[in-house]
Amino acid sequence: MIITFYLQIDLSIDKSRLRFGTFDEEDAINWCRSDLQTNGGHTAVDIAKIWSRNRIASILSNESSSPRSSISNDSNKPLIENPEKKHVSFNVLQRCSDKRKDLLWLDTKKKDADTQYLLFSDLQIYVSPEKQCNDDTPQKHQLITASYKDIDFYLNEGKSLNIFLGTEPLQTKNGQSKKERAWFAVDVSSMDKEKLESILPNGYFISPFPAFLNLNEYERSIFSEACSLILWHMDHQFCPTCGYRTIPEDAGLKRGCTNGKCLSRSGLLNTNYPRVDPNVVILVVNSSETHCLMGLKKNFPSNMFFCVSGYIEPGESIEDACTREILEQVSLDVVKVEYHSSQPWPYPVVLLVGCTVHVSTEVVKVNEEELKDASWFHFSEAELMIKGKHEEGYKVPSKQTLTYQLLDSWLETHRVE
Amino acid sequence: MIITFYLQIDLSIDKSRLRFGTFDEEDAINWCRSDLQTNGGHTAVDIAKIWSRNRIASILSNESSSPRSSISNDSNKPLIENPEKKHVSFNVLQRCSDKRKDLLWLDTKKKDADTQYLLFSDLQIYVSPEKQCNDDTPQKHQLITASYKDIDFYLNEGKSLNIFLGTEPLQTKNGQSKKERAWFAVDVSSMDKEKLESILPNGYFISPFPAFLNLNEYERSIFSEACSLILWHMDHQFCPTCGYRTIPEDAGLKRGCTNGKCLSRSGLLNTNYPRVDPNVVILVVNSSETHCLMGLKKNFPSNMFFCVSGYIEPGESIEDACTREILEQVSLDVVKVEYHSSQPWPYPVVLLVGCTVHVSTEVVKVNEEELKDASWFHFSEAELMIKGKHEEGYKVPSKQTLTYQLLDSWLETHRVE
Repeated sequence: MIITFYLQIDLSIDKSRLRFGTFDEEDAINWCRSDLQTNGGHTAVDIAKIWSRNRIASILSNESSSPRSSISNDSNKPLIENPEKKHVSFNVLQRCSDKRKDLLWLDTKKKDADTQYLLFSDLQIYVSPEKQCNDDTPQKHQLITASYKDIDFYLNEGKSLNIFLGTEPLQTKNGQSKKERAWFAVDVSSMDKEKLESILPNGYFISPFPAFLNLNEYERSIFSEACSLILWHMDHQFCPTCGYRTIPEDAGLKRGCTNGKCLSRSGLLNTNYPRVDPNVVILVVNSSETHCLMGLKKNFPSNMFFCVSGYIEPGESIEDACTREILEQVSLDVVKVEYHSSQPWPYPVVLLVGCTVHVSTEVVKVNEEELKDASWFHFSEAELMIKGKHEEGYKVPSKQTLTYQLLDSWLETHRVE
Repeated sequence: MIITFYLQIDLSIDKSRLRFGTFDEEDAINWCRSDLQTNGGHTAVDIAKIWSRNRIASILSNESSSPRSSISNDSNKPLIENPEKKHVSFNVLQRCSDKRKDLLWLDTKKKDADTQYLLFSDLQIYVSPEKQCNDDTPQKHQLITASYKDIDFYLNEGKSLNIFLGTEPLQTKNGQSKKERAWFAVDVSSMDKEKLESILPNGYFISPFPAFLNLNEYERSIFSEACSLILWHMDHQFCPTCGYRTIPEDAGLKRGCTNGKCLSRSGLLNTNYPRVDPNVVILVVNSSETHCLMGLKKNFPSNMFFCVSGYIEPGESIEDACTREILEQVSLDVVKVEYHSSQPWPYPVVLLVGCTVHVSTEVVKVNEEELKDASWFHFSEAELMIKGKHEEGYKVPSKQTLTYQLLDSWLETHRVE
């Protein structure tokens, strides 16, 4: 019914002019009766809005021109829920791309009493031990955040790197109107440590890896964004195109070259923006789907098995990269690549892309430049490993990793049977 | 049966020692009878090889230690076939990561008569018109490649950027032994153009975009890798960490900083390697799956509709990036993200990740900073657009783009019905 009604509006006037809003707007009103409704209770105005005929809708309803450029940020839930996939982090903050150049808005947010500042020093993060410890995660930490009044003396020196991370919706007490809390990440490397301790006591700086895995999901998500950006700023103080110094721009979401003649200031170069290095994480499954292949990494515990992984190279698809890495690292022939899920990894700015890869060959030749060893595991053995009950103590990394998630997801197909 | 036999070998000795090869190797021979075979005709040696028990296999068969570090490169087919998905390019070359530091091997390949050199000048590529023109693609080009003897005078000056791209297997006449042809990309910006024309006549340099879409799939694939690497070298002449000059290393697959004290020479920084910028390309589908949403881009023809797209930011998954971009650009609520496929895009070094995204809302607010306009299309209208038969002349980009592939794949579900 909606479709029919939509066509009724649409066919009434020249379609190409309608779509681009250059028609005689009075025509639309003449042809559409505002009192008619569809079975679903929609009027012509509703239908025009649903199908993005914003100008028609505004004429029919006598509204002023439609608010195209304002983006609604009033959701108070995570943007998307992936109930089956528990990954290292997700976008809990709304990144507000449209606000990154709005200096007035940013300054207001910076000084707002609700605003939270995450503190980094020499790439370490300020935390406290969490009070309610969980047996599964004995080294659990909790982020300590500062408010503007805690550290305004430092922020106003203007020497610190201060990165806008996004906003988090806050429900007010009456439940009617909504506020949003802004989050920033600040490098406090040059702040006096005793001073910091006096303002925010009982905290300490820790190296982020692997400690960040012991944060809760919410804190870990905000941390992942912050840590990747801080690391990128540290490693990109100079312009790769001309060698001049770069400075933070757009609230820390960009670094601009200080050389006015640099190509990066006029051309379509990507060098001003954070890099995100895509990396494939691959669970290899044999043709009868009874076994999976996992490897031992150099410099990692000799009983912890990981998925094979590698960086995607220029000119490659995800599928090509999986195929190349499996051939290079364990010399197996790939027949099918299935995407599973993805997650960020903040060391330094990695996008992990998890895939299940089916191979037609089983004789493994381990490339010792890449892996310490690799072995096939029957699903019953892999099930013991994931549960931490393998008799030889073989393990897989923690639940927040893609290796665990890929393996758990593959084992699920056997559990169902 | 294989599994049973495998356990028979495996349980005969201490399992942990077996896996890491530190057991008394004679034990394996004592416990395994080399004359027994499975129903499938496999001996203990075969089974040990299949399950990567390489040391056991070598003892049982009295072979020397297993050739773990040599990777087989003898396939003469594309590494993986994606019959349903026709994308812009795929890995036709084997990238031979293990050869990138092997100067002797590289020098031999460089001088080999079979080796092909792709020629770039000021980011333009040397081509000829293809003889057999196809009506669909009237501007079709063909890559012109040089051999070593054509351009040795120039290569031996040592001033040119020369990037190793990989090898392509060649079948010899008798079909028994195989050779491999190496491919390089050379920047000939400083070569005299008349000289080049006298060596390789009837060629001309063209801007790669959109001309590369008119190359055939094979040439386009090699070109994509080459173009991305050339562009990366041009834009990354300086170290982002310290500002010193960088120079090509590892046959052009890396750039090293010339400052011996630079952090990038000792730390785990990613700044020496090519960036690959992941970007989501999103076909939005409404909740009843009858309509898809596409947008008009600024500076593109006003009748050509594209998928919504955007770069993945630090700390985001593919799913999060899709959700954020759809909210930011057209203000719709995402409920499900389905990965479709991916492909490289060589301007400059992009990894396009194609997703179909299901939304729960339909009222579109176009963010005019990002898009010129966006509209819902019923599948019957989209079908006319993809076939080039839309009465208003609305189009979608060519078959090699993800927009086309996502749309064609979604329409396929309606065609089946």
